Amino acid sequence: MTRASSLQTEFDKKLARMRTSVERLLVETTRDLTPRSLYDPLRYVLKGGGKRIRPALLMLSCEAVGGTLQGAIHAAAAIEILHNFTLVHDDIMDNAGSRRGRKTVHTKWDPNVAILVGDELLALAYRELLKTTSPRIKEIVQLFTQGVVEVCEGQALDKEFENRRRVTVEEYLGMIQRKTGKMIAISTEIGGLVGKGTEDELDALRTFGEFLGRAFQIHDDLLDIVGDERELGKDVGSDLQEGKKTFLFLEALRLAKGEDRKRLREVIANGGVSKKRIGAFRRIYESCGAIDSARESVRRDTERARAALAKLCPGESRDMLDWLTDVLLHRTY
Amino acid sequence: MTRASSLQTEFDKKLARMRTSVERLLVETTRDLTPRSLYDPLRYVLKGGGKRIRPALLMLSCEAVGGTLQGAIHAAAAIEILHNFTLVHDDIMDNAGSRRGRKTVHTKWDPNVAILVGDELLALAYRELLKTTSPRIKEIVQLFTQGVVEVCEGQALDKEFENRRRVTVEEYLGMIQRKTGKMIAISTEIGGLVGKGTEDELDALRTFGEFLGRAFQIHDDLLDIVGDERELGKDVGSDLQEGKKTFLFLEALRLAKGEDRKRLREVIANGGVSKKRIGAFRRIYESCGAIDSARESVRRDTERARAALAKLCPGESRDMLDWLTDVLLHRTY
Repeated sequence: MTRASSLQTEFDKKLARMRTSVERLLVETTRDLTPRSLYDPLRYVLKGGGKRIRPALLMLSCEAVGGTLQGAIHAAAAIEILHNFTLVHDDIMDNAGSRRGRKTVHTKWDPNVAILVGDELLALAYRELLKTTSPRIKEIVQLFTQGVVEVCEGQALDKEFENRRRVTVEEYLGMIQRKTGKMIAISTEIGGLVGKGTEDELDALRTFGEFLGRAFQIHDDLLDIVGDERELGKDVGSDLQEGKKTFLFLEALRLAKGEDRKRLREVIANGGVSKKRIGAFRRIYESCGAIDSARESVRRDTERARAALAKLCPGESRDMLDWLTDVLLHRTY
Repeated sequence: MTRASSLQTEFDKKLARMRTSVERLLVETTRDLTPRSLYDPLRYVLKGGGKRIRPALLMLSCEAVGGTLQGAIHAAAAIEILHNFTLVHDDIMDNAGSRRGRKTVHTKWDPNVAILVGDELLALAYRELLKTTSPRIKEIVQLFTQGVVEVCEGQALDKEFENRRRVTVEEYLGMIQRKTGKMIAISTEIGGLVGKGTEDELDALRTFGEFLGRAFQIHDDLLDIVGDERELGKDVGSDLQEGKKTFLFLEALRLAKGEDRKRLREVIANGGVSKKRIGAFRRIYESCGAIDSARESVRRDTERARAALAKLCPGESRDMLDWLTDVLLHRTY
């Protein structure tokens, strides 16, 4: 086994251990709560799995500035609960029937239950966060709150864009920065705060999180059209089928000319395209340079994220954050 | 003018000043926020008026233990924003078309907007609360969070009871303690914390808030059947029409015998009664002693609330809390 692959195995194991400890806490902290009409669906949500990336980023960021993984466990669980709050409410708004192969709360129960479960998840996220021991707890809660504010703003913009004819690439980037990026950025920065990082370290972690979050989202947009169907767990081109104004779509609209541009405009007018036309649009994306542009954007953001990371003290946690960046952008898996 | 009525005028004026300062802050703190698709409906909610009782209780509690009204202004605004969060989401769940004579958010816009506006209100409530300067800010945020948790639990129980055949009076009291009482209790206790009250003072304020909250709710149940239609702003007997299991209804079910009891059971089976039968049920409530029981319960809780208040140092704020108790229970108006 090479040194690199042995490190990967170590990192994989550590990631799995962190996931286990967060999931154990999620179970413990909600085990005996009543009434069951509220907490059974809530526990169902928290058992839904997922990669638990945000808590891992938070705990590693804490460790990277000299704190312990364990000291960040409550904040890590809080960020995961917060993430799940957004999923439950977004799924109602997006009318999504399933998530990670299981029925969504509003389909398995009903929308009223899902509204209330989401609200309670948000409250429990704060309760968990407040178990953190830190002289900077006020700033931690403020940052967390800023995350909630921006996630809601991002979701509002996302819904607004669905009904707007014209959205610029810049507007899209502003939206995903709030809806997706901010949650990653607060994960890394809160980790740094819990770990008693210096202001420079907090800056570096915030910048790392912001660029990582953006790269992550554009990578996701890209995967939808160039990804593997089995790996995606959904149809290739589902964003296009739903007429979503992704980075790729808006970039194609900006770059394409003539007939291609006209076809893209039709997607907006029709609110999506049929599955059998996905291939044709993929070719438009390729020929106009939108795919190259998205790849370049991911590459540049990843580089910036890494550059920020390089400002932290060298060590295993920093290396693992670097590795996790690759994992998230599907380069190693 | 007698001394008592001159005091009332003073208190009325002070209450109006507090309301104005809270409402001004609600406007300021949300004025320039974007996107408008989120914040226009949110500002609409916050401009909806209401008595602003919770912030008044919070500010007076702060002053009653030696703090200033101004020192509690952010926490007061936070509790009002939190209250409005519960209204927006409850209105979706209850399918309510109007509130305080205006369309609800989910009717004026749509349910998705109302979900998101509620979420954002909760986030803004925390943001506002965190502007409070206090060495005990962590406890303040914890208490606030406990309030959110219990409000959700109370709402879950309330919805659960709608579909249950049997609910005991004790279960009902447990539900309203969470859904209504807790929010009043955290208002007074947070006020005490901001004002740097002693543990005894905090205990007294919490007990005051808890009993006041319960008295308030049972008084509300009572008003629905014995109140004045114009004052209520809704039909007399609307709880009965909707088949709500209020204190009065459950107490009647416990006390009534024979035919009367059978008629009450039918209300559950039928999910409510027609408007023209309200008079008949009012007579059942009276003859079985449910109305007396509710009045006695309000009287006893008010007495306990007042007894708790008496443990605070004498002074204008304490007197005004006492007066506010009367106002809330419609004894002076």
